This record gives sequence, structure tokens and C-alpha cells, in this order.
Amino acid sequence: MNRIAGLRDRAGIAYGGDYNPEQWPEEVWDEDVRLMREAGVSLVSVGIFSWASVEPRPGEYAFGWLDRVLDRLADGGVAACLATMTASPPPWLTASHPEMLTVRADGSTITPGGRQHYCPSSPVYREHAVRLATQVATRYAGHPALAIWHVNNEYGNVVPCHCDVSAAAFRRWLADRYGSVDELNDAWSTRFWAQGYGSFDEVLPPRSPAPFTNPAQELDYARFTSDELLACYLAEKEVLDRITPDVPVTTNFPPSLRPVDQWTWAPHLDVIAYDAYPDPLDPDATAKIAFSYDVMRSLRDGQPWLLMEQAPGAVNWRPRNAPKPRGAMRLWSWQAVAHGADAVMFFQWRQSRGGAEKFHSAMVPHGGPSTRIFGEVRRLGGELTAARALAGARAPRADAAMVLDWPSWWALDGPAHPSADVRFLDAAWACHRPLYDAGVACDVVRPDADLSGYRLVVVPNLYLTSEDAARTLERYVEEGGTLVMSFFSGIVDPCDRVHLGGYPAPFRRMLGLSVEEFHPLAEDATVGLPGGSGSVWSEEVRLEGAEAVERFTTGALAGGPAVTRHRFGRGDAWYLATRPDPATMRRLFDRVREAAGVAPVLPGLPGGVQARARDTEAGRWYVVLNHGTDPADVALPAAMRDVLTGADPATSVRLDPRGVAVLRPA
Amino acid sequence: MNRIAGLRDRAGIAYGGDYNPEQWPEEVWDEDVRLMREAGVSLVSVGIFSWASVEPRPGEYAFGWLDRVLDRLADGGVAACLATMTASPPPWLTASHPEMLTVRADGSTITPGGRQHYCPSSPVYREHAVRLATQVATRYAGHPALAIWHVNNEYGNVVPCHCDVSAAAFRRWLADRYGSVDELNDAWSTRFWAQGYGSFDEVLPPRSPAPFTNPAQELDYARFTSDELLACYLAEKEVLDRITPDVPVTTNFPPSLRPVDQWTWAPHLDVIAYDAYPDPLDPDATAKIAFSYDVMRSLRDGQPWLLMEQAPGAVNWRPRNAPKPRGAMRLWSWQAVAHGADAVMFFQWRQSRGGAEKFHSAMVPHGGPSTRIFGEVRRLGGELTAARALAGARAPRADAAMVLDWPSWWALDGPAHPSADVRFLDAAWACHRPLYDAGVACDVVRPDADLSGYRLVVVPNLYLTSEDAARTLERYVEEGGTLVMSFFSGIVDPCDRVHLGGYPAPFRRMLGLSVEEFHPLAEDATVGLPGGSGSVWSEEVRLEGAEAVERFTTGALAGGPAVTRHRFGRGDAWYLATRPDPATMRRLFDRVREAAGVAPVLPGLPGGVQARARDTEAGRWYVVLNHGTDPADVALPAAMRDVLTGADPATSVRLDPRGVAVLRPA
Amino acid sequence: MNRIAGLRDRAGIAYGGDYNPEQWPEEVWDEDVRLMREAGVSLVSVGIFSWASVEPRPGEYAFGWLDRVLDRLADGGVAACLATMTASPPPWLTASHPEMLTVRADGSTITPGGRQHYCPSSPVYREHAVRLATQVATRYAGHPALAIWHVNNEYGNVVPCHCDVSAAAFRRWLADRYGSVDELNDAWSTRFWAQGYGSFDEVLPPRSPAPFTNPAQELDYARFTSDELLACYLAEKEVLDRITPDVPVTTNFPPSLRPVDQWTWAPHLDVIAYDAYPDPLDPDATAKIAFSYDVMRSLRDGQPWLLMEQAPGAVNWRPRNAPKPRGAMRLWSWQAVAHGADAVMFFQWRQSRGGAEKFHSAMVPHGGPSTRIFGEVRRLGGELTAARALAGARAPRADAAMVLDWPSWWALDGPAHPSADVRFLDAAWACHRPLYDAGVACDVVRPDADLSGYRLVVVPNLYLTSEDAARTLERYVEEGGTLVMSFFSGIVDPCDRVHLGGYPAPFRRMLGLSVEEFHPLAEDATVGLPGGSGSVWSEEVRLEGAEAVERFTTGALAGGPAVTRHRFGRGDAWYLATRPDPATMRRLFDRVREAAGVAPVLPGLPGGVQARARDTEAGRWYVVLNHGTDPADVALPAAMRDVLTGADPATSVRLDPRGVAVLRPA
Repeated sequence: MNRIAGLRDRAGIAYGGDYNPEQWPEEVWDEDVRLMREAGVSLVSVGIFSWASVEPRPGEYAFGWLDRVLDRLADGGVAACLATMTASPPPWLTASHPEMLTVRADGSTITPGGRQHYCPSSPVYREHAVRLATQVATRYAGHPALAIWHVNNEYGNVVPCHCDVSAAAFRRWLADRYGSVDELNDAWSTRFWAQGYGSFDEVLPPRSPAPFTNPAQELDYARFTSDELLACYLAEKEVLDRITPDVPVTTNFPPSLRPVDQWTWAPHLDVIAYDAYPDPLDPDATAKIAFSYDVMRSLRDGQPWLLMEQAPGAVNWRPRNAPKPRGAMRLWSWQAVAHGADAVMFFQWRQSRGGAEKFHSAMVPHGGPSTRIFGEVRRLGGELTAARALAGARAPRADAAMVLDWPSWWALDGPAHPSADVRFLDAAWACHRPLYDAGVACDVVRPDADLSGYRLVVVPNLYLTSEDAARTLERYVEEGGTLVMSFFSGIVDPCDRVHLGGYPAPFRRMLGLSVEEFHPLAEDATVGLPGGSGSVWSEEVRLEGAEAVERFTTGALAGGPAVTRHRFGRGDAWYLATRPDPATMRRLFDRVREAAGVAPVLPGLPGGVQARARDTEAGRWYVVLNHGTDPADVALPAAMRDVLTGADPATSVRLDPRGVAVLRPA
Repeated sequence: MNRIAGLRDRAGIAYGGDYNPEQWPEEVWDEDVRLMREAGVSLVSVGIFSWASVEPRPGEYAFGWLDRVLDRLADGGVAACLATMTASPPPWLTASHPEMLTVRADGSTITPGGRQHYCPSSPVYREHAVRLATQVATRYAGHPALAIWHVNNEYGNVVPCHCDVSAAAFRRWLADRYGSVDELNDAWSTRFWAQGYGSFDEVLPPRSPAPFTNPAQELDYARFTSDELLACYLAEKEVLDRITPDVPVTTNFPPSLRPVDQWTWAPHLDVIAYDAYPDPLDPDATAKIAFSYDVMRSLRDGQPWLLMEQAPGAVNWRPRNAPKPRGAMRLWSWQAVAHGADAVMFFQWRQSRGGAEKFHSAMVPHGGPSTRIFGEVRRLGGELTAARALAGARAPRADAAMVLDWPSWWALDGPAHPSADVRFLDAAWACHRPLYDAGVACDVVRPDADLSGYRLVVVPNLYLTSEDAARTLERYVEEGGTLVMSFFSGIVDPCDRVHLGGYPAPFRRMLGLSVEEFHPLAEDATVGLPGGSGSVWSEEVRLEGAEAVERFTTGALAGGPAVTRHRFGRGDAWYLATRPDPATMRRLFDRVREAAGVAPVLPGLPGGVQARARDTEAGRWYVVLNHGTDPADVALPAAMRDVLTGADPATSVRLDPRGVAVLRPA
Repeated sequence: MNRIAGLRDRAGIAYGGDYNPEQWPEEVWDEDVRLMREAGVSLVSVGIFSWASVEPRPGEYAFGWLDRVLDRLADGGVAACLATMTASPPPWLTASHPEMLTVRADGSTITPGGRQHYCPSSPVYREHAVRLATQVATRYAGHPALAIWHVNNEYGNVVPCHCDVSAAAFRRWLADRYGSVDELNDAWSTRFWAQGYGSFDEVLPPRSPAPFTNPAQELDYARFTSDELLACYLAEKEVLDRITPDVPVTTNFPPSLRPVDQWTWAPHLDVIAYDAYPDPLDPDATAKIAFSYDVMRSLRDGQPWLLMEQAPGAVNWRPRNAPKPRGAMRLWSWQAVAHGADAVMFFQWRQSRGGAEKFHSAMVPHGGPSTRIFGEVRRLGGELTAARALAGARAPRADAAMVLDWPSWWALDGPAHPSADVRFLDAAWACHRPLYDAGVACDVVRPDADLSGYRLVVVPNLYLTSEDAARTLERYVEEGGTLVMSFFSGIVDPCDRVHLGGYPAPFRRMLGLSVEEFHPLAEDATVGLPGGSGSVWSEEVRLEGAEAVERFTTGALAGGPAVTRHRFGRGDAWYLATRPDPATMRRLFDRVREAAGVAPVLPGLPGGVQARARDTEAGRWYVVLNHGTDPADVALPAAMRDVLTGADPATSVRLDPRGVAVLRPA
């Protein structure tokens, strides 16, 4: 945290974006800094894809242009989040070392011409990356613009590499993990399909077998990939820590959340950073992104995090890229702050003229500063400056928490399951949504976390669990907690081997039931529930102490339990044997919440209005967001002052459609 | 047949499943045998994927564990269908010989980590497989548990290999078949697109040309692949026949039926074995599987066959895997027996804890013996034991037969046809269904079979036919038979070259018509028929002696013949110029049947009730199956005794929903 | 033109098809010529896929059979369009030089067994092709049958090659184009994603990067591929010009139009040739093919062109291949003549017995000359003979023209755009259709053409434009022209770099507007227009002098301009900010046309009736086509004589459904 304080002091709620001046002639740079100042920009990410520009030939460095850029920024009072520039190896490197390119599972190669086309296990890549990071750190140590390091970019935002170099590294990783090949055979259940290994030398990545890969091998390959990428990060971080011990270090997690195990990464980042790209054509976009933001806030236990990238308008990489509706850029930016962000940053500062992302919106569009977008950018910059005192404020601990575990996610999304429709992110969204809609704050926790402070713990599809983690959850309930678990949880151990003894064996006692048989539903089919329906899944539940709160009304399981509740110890364990529709989920979660005593952040919020709290030294602030298209009136717990309008303190506030209020104690 | 009698004596209607004890600690094995006895299990398939377990290093054998397994089985009175274990080569073999892996048509490799990843033409694979089969046979010759050999597993249940080793073998196969390259050029019509070969050395497998492969080359590659797999089988069988001359040998055909030409394989199997996986979410599942069972019964002219694998509940390899509805496992098992099976076996005995198929149901589920599934398994075992006298009984020859020819199937499903929607299996199902629904038994025959005993022969889409086979069918009609042929039959010769002289040239005389032009229908489009519709196809028929029984009522061909009938010689030849909807098919086939004198197995069966007969030495038994969800009363030809209930003989029987009766002469 | 006159004198409106006698025994050839004479065939394309037949082994030629074929044709009075036979390399060549096979972008190889599987940059391929062309030209120079050369076949009708040989050739092409690697870096905007090249040696084809290729690299690769194919063509043409200087040379453009830049190719063809395959199941087939025909007529400024291939009935390469409806073959053939064709030719003369296209219809079907198709072929041959005087007649210059530019097409269809649904061909069809439906003739022009003679210029999605081309269009309007431009035009320069200064910068002045932001629509979504709707796209238009003719009625942009008009200089510039539905397009275009004074070819044509004019020395002829299914009466500008019926001159003509009239001055 210490290293971060400096950044906060300089940048407040950091505002800015990726700045790629090398794409423009130098005469544009002065205008850049001038417009940055005009827009209230306090931090820019520089050099993320500059490897070829600063090292145009092996070992030959060309930092002059960057010196001038950073000097201009320093002069203009704009801090730099300076990249180590290692995300996109230059043509000279891949041309001389084609063996460092990523190889897909099907054996095809990711060729140069895009980005991030390196094998993370490649010693050639790592050596060149560390060498470059060393050069950059040495050159800019002490530069007045330098505020924070941006290592690489979106680690894991490509497919895992399956090349022979990776295979060798995987073997070493496995040898470390399992010690002996017998242990490996046991962990991977290789007696099945005659896969027993005689030595680690025989092991390959899960490439392209028929009809399925070994799921335990796939799972370990996901762990290995996360670890290899982390090793890349740590190798660069080690350099930076050594050369600039006072400068904080981060890397930005990619939008999909999935590629790396963020619980294992988080301790190595001085501050969490995240790139968020909600799809304006998705009506659930803000609810989904709220989940991501809750993850980010939780990774370092509530420490403010950086929204390192978002789009001011449209992106360019979906099949159809709608712009953000008028006002949404501002609203969604404040949503990040509401969820604990201390930065609102964009990809990118100035829209590229050429290249693959020239139609990705930017703070300064092709049309220049007279555009609607730049006008909104300027306005937002002013607002964030006005709310500067919020920087550093932590959110109060939530009453509710949701369990998230990367290995379980990876295993759940694996091959040859009862239903390919059961994917973790859908499950997480389905469980997070009723809390979000009810205005309830929600933390995200590891399954083995200390849950004692939470009134409610939600466990979406925790397919994989260790016995220890299962005991933690059981103890939480036993000691008085309320827990909601959805189907297909507690099925396998950390090696993707079934917990025997009746599904879900490690949770049977806690839930007071067992599952006789899975009944996944046909595509787009539903099963009846009282006043609603379930989708994706159903299952035959045998009650063993639990009561059936709701029963299936149609289908092969009609009359059987669909939602159960078990009073266990001093607590309450709920179970969902299907995925209820959103309205039913809301109804069920409201009931659970009331029983558990979990209240919304503010009482009586109108529909579509979201509120989140952050605690400053001067007291609790609220950020209130109207996601709806009608004006809304919000009652406050006391007379408060809207930082954005500067209006007199009041006990209620009116929000325009897509309106925002930032309220501090009067 | 002799070699099979021993198995029948030991196992009756064999009951059991794949048994993979190597996946479990030895202490589980005693419980296994105990539960097998409890469930009436008489036969288990052992060692199918045990290569790596019995030969953990090249030439080093570890049979101890298997000795103990087989001893236990023998002690428990359970016979073994012992595998040669060659279906999944172990890692040490593919690691040292990667050139033996299957290569797909697109050039990518099927990598280890699944199963059946060997090139069937690989001398390395064959040498190791034969060596292993020799070891296994030598070791277990005379073992009291050994009842039958299970060679490899589901030959052809992967894509054909297109590697360079296969290419060389293909060239040898072609040289054998055609003698000279001129003959090859003629057979493959290589004047088209300048494909004329100067020598066999220039020939390749049909890999990935643009825009289409040569269809004659594709067809020969399917023949070659079937022959290469057969050579693999025969190489192992030769060993087994030599070492254990009294033990019968089989291999299990894969569910899809399509990969190998079963007519050429059947003489080499002492008993036919088949793996059946109807999809519980498919409402036509039992009708479709009935066709497969009719094929199996017919392959060795009515000899009872073995249902070697089915699932007790759900499988795990479809995108969504529903369990079998309550009672369906029993009902569908009896359906196999009704269609002539002498075994009801499952994949697998005990559900795997790990690996790619851990969610495939098993006789002993993850939940253990207290589960619903094991309860049904136990009950079914008791029933099959009660019906033991049925083992060995052949079905009476049916009145109706359906023509099936693998090369025609392969050619019909080939590239660049008038419509990609014309696929053989759909055609076969469409023609089999109205007989199935009417309770009519149906054999399956080669196109050049002796048809004289049949009252009705159905010929679905016999796209490819030799002149000889065509003459056989023609003669059948001429001599008084009734034949129904569907469109796009008689189009090409065995080299996929069009029979000139007006479609369908070899059948014009018999059918009394020619086809002016094909009018395949747009996707999901239909064409009107009186009271119904046709799909997939229509065509312009010129009557040349035939009468139009039905005419198209809509479309470009409105008023033209859609269904025709031609009295030819002493017989009757019907023709379908479209694929009528199921109700229309039923109406048409009922009319044809009545004219031909083809009766159902039992008269007056209620809708959804199926009956099949098998002739024991003590007279004709009936297996009656209620596929419906209402109770049904079935009148019997005489007072009979239900073997399952043991009730007094009666002249009718009441069947519960999904109920079964097994009736023997009183 | 001179070289072409001889062909016209011999063949009139050339009639015939691809003739592949090598697929048939010699005894069939006499019947072939007899039937050709019977059908009025005047020209056949010989030897297109005969490489393996005339050069069965390297350097060993077997022309005897072809001598006999050509002699027979000459004797029968049928001229030959003789192929250089280089489109499908024979097995001996690819077996000894597998490095000459096409490699797809994903690294997989197009293997032999189809056609056109050569890398156009391969020196091996080129050397062998030129050698063969030399042999063929030498042998048949002066042969009385030889009327025109057919070089190769459908250049570009496969995917571009991405092999290492291509990579080297691409580098040379780039070095020629850009001179220095700095220029290349600038043109390709390689500062983005660190793609800066240190030397040309580092450049690769755009193979398979993640997530996108560099769009400028893709665009140059399309240019390079077109140029490499042109080099192949020119290498053969050089041989032919040298050996047979009086014989015209052509090659047939593939149906899709897209692969090669036909503006750069056209000067090198003595006559344009095109292969047209409208889909009978597509209700818009004739409107779409009319656009293709307008392109062909325009490529050499109105010179008659050759319809080198079409199908007499069904093709075989779509998933479902419907035959042409009765009468459509004749009608659509005359449609080509109406649009300026001097040839009506088919693939192929006699339907193949074997090979990948045996189900492609032919002039002589499998059923022989007694078929419906051959009857229609004979009739059409008679009609074309009757209309012989039309050969050589040029169409009068149209009042309307549409701009077509291949680099813009390629760039528009490139990766990572605001919407993947914006594809050039759809845009062209959408803009061509309202003219076609209104009976208005339309030329096709380069963007930098002299437009002064046109009353109306239509510019569909001219995404890429040079400043010069933009000035040409602007000047056209300024000087009095009427122009209609659709959205997403004028966006990038020839290197796919955005024209800065507010979209569409180069056209802002002319259009009197700028575009604030793109709002592409969700899949299948629409946006309201008065009385109709728009699809695919919408955008926020700022009026800067233009008036809003129509405004969006729904969506985020409701009330904003959807269709604008700007009086600029002495002219009028219209702009479409969405893709209106066809009825709205018709309404808008009718309005624009009336204002611009653009009249249909004949006034008062009934719906579904098309008329086109061609000017003979004896005056203006009209070809009138009834695409409808009802009879139609058409009033003529004067008493004219129907060449097909020979009826007395009249001032009106009645057309049957699918009827045709060919009218000459009385």
C-alpha cells in the first residue's frame, strides 16, 4: 500500500488512458498534453506496444522519442504508468526465433502480425523481455513522470501455448508438483484409456486427442499456464523492484477474468488493475461488469483498484460494435468508482489512424476535440477531480460474499460433462444478479477464506473443492452463517476426481440432501417452478434433513425438490437444483437475504438505481447511479452534499436518466 | 456357432458390462464380485483399455493384478470377455513412435491423451498389438474365467488416418485392386480436373483439396480404411485362434454403424457384438435403435448377437446428456433381446472416479449400490436369469427385408451431390420406421442377397449399385416380389460413375419410369403430397409403364408423380420420388404391406407397443414392449406364460407404461 | 478489338460450352459434333483441364487425341476456344514439387485431388505452365478450329496462397511498391502493436495472428495476389501473342467477382469473359447477376463480352442445388445478351459420368439428347442464330453509373470493423437493385473515371478512397452531376489509414455533413424510417449544409438525419446513413432519378419486365425479358420486329411468363 500512496497523491482518482504517441508525428504531442490538461487527465499508460520502437534492432535502443514524451508529460503534470513494453515482441525477434511463437492446441501457430504471440515458457522470450524491462527501468528510474509500472499487458488474453518448449516446461512443472510419475498417474486417473505414464518425458500438453482430452491434464495445464505467465510477470517485477524500489508495480487483468488464477497473482501486484469492456448491446452489461468489479475490489481485500482500460464509446473487435449510449461512459465510469476503483482509464487517448484497432473509440476521436466523446471526456475529468477526496477510500465490508475459485472454474468448463451449458461465468452472473438488483453489496472470496464476518455466502457451481475448503464452508454454516449453493457443486476433488459417497459428497451433511441423478435440460428447454421456470439443469434430489422450499412443477422430476433449505448447526444452507429464471432468483434471494439480515446499501432504492459506499477519513460517501431511463428520487440516510453539483446538502437526491450523484457527509 | 455354445451355456443371456478394476484399489474388487453376483451378472468385459497397465514398459509385462481379477471372477462364477487391450496404445509407444498417430484429412494429428489414436496401417502399431495379443492369449489360455475374446474396441470409431504410412498402404491396396494405373484412372474418372496418374506412387489419400475431393477416391478410401481395420482385427484373431482354438472371438461394432463394411467383417466374428447409445432426448430413439438391432441380427443371418455396450443411464459425450427415463433401461434392454440379442451389457460396471468418462453412467454409480440405477440393474439381472431359456433362440425369418450396402452408404454421403441433405441413415430410418410402427419384423440384407423368401423388400437410397445387384432386385420383383425403392437409387456404379441411359438406368425397366431431373428442396422446405408433404427431395418423373399413386400438389412439379407403382413380371415395384412425412410413409407402407401380405408379429397391437418373436426348441416366445406412457392390453395368439411375472398362462397380457412381457408357450 | 472481329464473324453470338472429350471414348466424339450442329453450337472451350492428358509425363506430350478432336470440330464448323490447360497441375508435377501447392492462411495445404492447387508465385508452376502453353500454341497455331485462347481458368477462384515461396515474392512486391522499409512501416501503420519491421526480410503473409491481422497488410496481400495471378496470365499471354499474333486471348473471371482487380486485368484481355452461376433458390438471383453483367460490359468500356460459363440447369457445389425453373435457362441467357454479352456458353457440353462434378448439369445430360434440357438447348441455339446480327453491338452509354473499386472492396471486407455485416457486395446489390427494378441501365466505373457523361453516379460504401478519386467525385457533383453515396464511404486512404478531420473527411464538403459516430445495428435488427426501415447500420449525422430528406424514427438516433441531400455547386449529393429496405430504396432512387433526369430503357415497363438496348449498325435493338410469372404487354418506341418470332412489326409485344422478345427496327 505504501508504494501506492504516492500515485494517489499525484493522480487522485487517476484519469486518463493508454497513450501511444509513437503512432503520431511529434508535432501532435504538444496538443496531446494540452488536451490532457483540459480534460483533467492525471495518468497515462505509455509504451505498452512500443518494443519495436524502443529496440528497433536486437540490443539497439532508441529511447530518445520516449524521453521527449515523458518530459512533456512531466512538464504538463501528467503522471506516467510506464509499460515494460513486453506484450508484443517485434518482428526481428520472432523472425530470428520462430520457435517462440504460440502454438495452438490443434498444432497451428499464432503467427506475427497481431500481438501477444509469444510462448510464456520460451527462454528466448523471457530473456529478451527481462533485458528490455531492465533497460526501461534503468533509463526512467527517477524520471519525474514515472508514477507506476505497467508490466506487459493482459497476461493470458490469448490461447495457451502448446508448443514443444511448453511441453518441456509442463513436464518440469508436473515433476515439481507431483514428485513421481506414480503420483501423476494417480492425480490424472490415467488408468482410464491406458494413459499410464512410464516417465514424465512421455507427457504432452493436452493438444488434440480424440474424442476428449484428459480433464485432469487440461486442468493442470490451466494451472501451469497461469503459473508460467506469473513467472513472466515476476521476472520483470524483480527487475523493477530492484531498480525502482519505490515505484509501485501492476499489470492489467484481461476482461474475461478467466485465464489466470487471480488469487495467486494478487499478492504480487501493488495494486489491482483491470480492463473492462461491457457490450453496449447486452442489456445485462452493467450487472455483469458489477461482478467483475466486485472481484477486483476483493482481490486485495478491499484495496482500491485501477480501471486501467475501458472504451469511451465503441470497440472494434466484436462482430457488431455499438457505441455506448449517450451518458453511459460517464455512468459506467462512476460505476467502477462506486465499486472501489481509484482510476478511470481508457484505451486509448487518441484514436489510431491505422492498424487493427483504428475503429476502437478513444478519448480524442478521429474527429478531434470537437466531438461529443471528447466533450464527455472533459466533463468526466472535471467531475473526478471534484471527487478527488474519494481516492484511497475503501468500501465497507459487505454483508454478502460470493465464492470464486479459478481451478473450479477451469474444471467446470472442461470437456465431457453432463451438460456443456453449465459454465461458471453464467452461474456466477445468475447468482450475483439478484444481489445487484436488490442494491446489496457483495464481496468475492476464496472458498477457503475466513467467512465469519459475512451474513450470507453464495456458492455458484463450486464443481471442484478440496475437503478442507468444503469443511470451511460447512463450519461457516454450522456456526450460524447462511449459505446458498447452486447445483453441480462439490463434485470433484482438486484432481478432478469425483468425491464418492453420493453427490455432493463433501456438502451432503451441510445441505441435508443427496443427488440421485443429474437431469440436464435440452438446449433452450426449461423446467417448471412455482410461478417461474428453471433452465440448463435439473436433478433428482433426495432430502436427508433439508426441506423442499420449491418443487419442480413439470418434467420427469415434477414434484421433486428444486430449491431446498437445511437448518444446519446454527445456520441455514440453501440449495438450488436448477437455474431459476431471474425473477425467481430475485424472489428466492430476497427471502434468503431477509432471513439472513442482509440489507441493501441504501434502503428503498428505486428499480434500476444502484448505490455503493466508500469510507473516507471524513466519513462514508455514497455513489448513486441511475441505470434507468427515467428520473429517480433517492432518499439518503442523512443530509449529504452532492460533490458533482455542489448543491446544498439534502436528505434526498434526484437523478436524471443515466444520472450520477456522489454524496459526501454534509 | 460351436465356439459360441460354450459361452451361452455359461452366461445364458449374458449380463454385465465393461469391468475396469485397474481404476480401483484392490480392496474394491471383492465388493465388485459380490455385487455382480447380487445383480445376476454373468459376463464382464475385462481389460479393454489396459495396455499401459499390463505392459507398462516395452516388452515388460505386469499381469499379476489381472491374474487376481480373473481368479476372483472365476471364483464368483462370472465369465470374462477378455480384451486384447490394443485399442489405446500407451504413452511409451506413441512417445517413441509418433509416426503411428492418426493424421486427420486436414493434416492435423490426433495426439495422445484420448484413445484409438493409432494409424491402422502402421506396422509399428500392428506389431505391438499382435505381440500384446499373443502375450495375453498365452497367459490366459485355459483360464477358467475366459469365455470369449474381445478384440480391440469399436474399430473405426475415429476419423480415418491420412498419414504418409496410410498413403503407402493405400497405394498397395489400389495396386492390388486395380492392377494397373490405367485401370485406376478409369475407375476414378481422373480425366476430370487433370487428375490422371502416371504411377501409383503419385496417389495420395483424399486429404484436403479444393473445392472437393475426387468422390471415387473418397469411396475407395472408405473401402481401404475398412479393410485396413479388418486386417488389424484378423492379425489379432489369427493369434487367438491359434492359441485358444476353442474360445470364440468377437469385436464390438461402434454405435454409428457406418465406419466399416460389416458384411465383409461378419464372417470373421464368431458372434456379432454392438455398442448402442440411443439418445434419451431423441423422441425417435427406440425406432432408430431398432434398425441397428435388425442390422446386427441380420449380419450373421439371424444368429443371436451381443449387445456389448449400452449406458445404464446418461452418457457424457453429447453436449447435453439426459439420463434414461425411469424404466427405460429395462425396456430398452429387453428391446435388444426382442431383436435377437443374447447379451445385455453396459459400459461400464463401476463408474470411474476420474478421466474423461467419469460422468458416463455405470451399473454401480458414484453413489454406490443404494442408487436407483443399481436397483434397476439388480432387477433386470433377475429377469434375464428367469428368461435364460431364450438364449440361443433365433428370430423367425421376417417377411420384410431392407437392403443395406456400405459402399453405397459411403458414396451417397460423399461430396458435391444434388443435396447434402440426402444421407443414408436418414433414408434408412425413414423407411424402417413405418414397419417398426406397424409392428412388422424386418431383416436387413445385402443388395445381392437371395431375396426369394421375402414378401417385401425395401430399398432406401441405393445410390450405388452394380449391374449384378440391380439384376438381383429386378429378378426378385419379376418373380413375384414387392419392392419399395426411394429416390436417388441406381445412380452410380461401384466406381461412383453414373449409369447412363436415364436415371435410374439399372432400375428403369423394373420401376417403369425414368427421372428427368432432380429437384432437391431448400433447407427445411417441403413439397405438397395428398394429405401430407415430402421433404429433402423431389424429382421430375416420366412414367414409362408405372402408374402415379400419388402426385405432388405444390411446387414446380405439382401434378407430377410423387409415388409410383409398377406391376412388373409377377411382382410390384413402388417408387418414392420424395421423402414423405412419417404419417404419409406409414399410410403408404401399410398399403404396400397389405398388398404384399406382410403381417405384424402380433395382430392388433396398440400404438407404441412392439412385439418380436424368437423360436426356442420349446416353441415361439414373444417379447412384448410398451414404449408408451399408458398401460396397454395385448392379445396373444394362444394362452402363454409371462416369464417375468410367472403369472398363470393367459391369452392376453397387460403392460404397464414402459412395461415388458416375455411370453413363452404355456 | 481487331482480333475479336474474326471470332464474331465465325461464331456470331457464340454458343456452346466447355467441351471435355477426353472424358469420353472416341466413338462419342462424332455424336458430339453432330449434336453440336443440331443445337447451333458455334464455339466450344476445349482442354481446360487436360494438362495430365496432353502431358502425361514431364515433357512428354500426347496431342494426338486433341488433334483428332479439333479436326472434327473444324470439319463440323465449330470454333474452338482453346485452353492453355494450366489450371490444374497433374499429379506428376505436384508429386515431384509439393512445395508448389497452395498453403492456406492457417498453414494447412490444399492437397492435390481437386483443382487450382498451385501457388501463383511458384517458379516451378510458372515454368511448367509457360512450357505447356508454348507447346499448345505451337501445335495449334494455324489450326482451322482455333478461334480464341482460353488462358488457365477462373484465376483467383481459390484461397490466396500463404506459403514461404509466396512470402518471398510478397517481400519483393513490397520492396517494389514501397522502396524502403520505412515507407512500408508508415503505409502499414506498424507502430501499432509493435509491428515495426527492420527489413523486408522480416515480413510474412498475413497468416494466422491473434486476434486480428494488420488490415493494411491484408489489403496489400490482396493486391499482391491479384498481381501475381496477373503475372501468371501475362506469362502465358506473352507466349500466345508471340506464336499466334492474330488469335485473341482471354481468361474467364470467376463468379464471385472479388478475387482479382478486374480494372487492372481488363486491358490485358482481348475480350472480357465471365462465369455466371445465379442460384435458382435465390429470389434475387437475376437482379444480382445483372450487376455482374454490368461490370463485365463496363470493364472494357462497353465492348461486348463473353458469358463463358453458366449452368443449363442445376450446379452441384452448393449444399442444395435446385435446377433452373423451366424457361429460366433461356431467359437468363438472353439476360446476358441484353447486358452486352456476345456469347452464351455453358459448363459443360456433355455431363461427366464420374468425378466431382458429375451432378453439374450439362447441355447433353446423362439422359442424352431426348431430355428436356437438350431440347431447350437446341431451341436457344436456334434463337441465337436468328439474332446473329446483334453480335458486336454495343450497349448505348447508360445515364447512370455505379462506382466499383477492388481495393476498397477488399479493405471494406477486412477485419475489426464497426460491423462485420457491412460487406461490399451487399452494398452494391442494394444500390443496383432499385435501378434494375426501375428498368434503368447502369454502367460500372472506376472511382477515378471520367464521369462527365453520366446524369447519376451511385457510390456504394466506398470505404477506401484516395484524395484524388474523392476530388474526381466532388468535381463531378460540382459541375452538375447527381451522386448518391452510402454510409461508411471515404473513411480510409489507400493504405487503410483513416482520413482525419471528421468522417467522411474527403466527402464532407461535397455531402455537406459529417458523421459524429457510427451506430452499427445488432444482428437482424432494424431502425425505423418513414414508411420503412434501415438495417445493418446507422450513424449520427451532423448537417453542415445538407438537408435531412428522411430522419430516423426509432432508436438512439430517432429524429436524426437518415437520408440527406446537399446541393453542391451545380449538382446534388445524396447520402444514405443506413441501408434502407428495398422498397424504401426504390422510392428514394426514383426520386433521385427523376431529379437527375435518368429514364428507364423503355418507359412504362410492367413490373418484373426488363429491357436493355444494343446499337447495331442497322439501329437500336431491344432485348425485353419477362422475369415474372404472368404474361406482360410491353409498348415499344416504334414499330419493331421480334427476331425470335419473326412476326410482323408492331408497336407492342406480348411476353409469356419467362418470355423473351428480341426487337429490331422494323
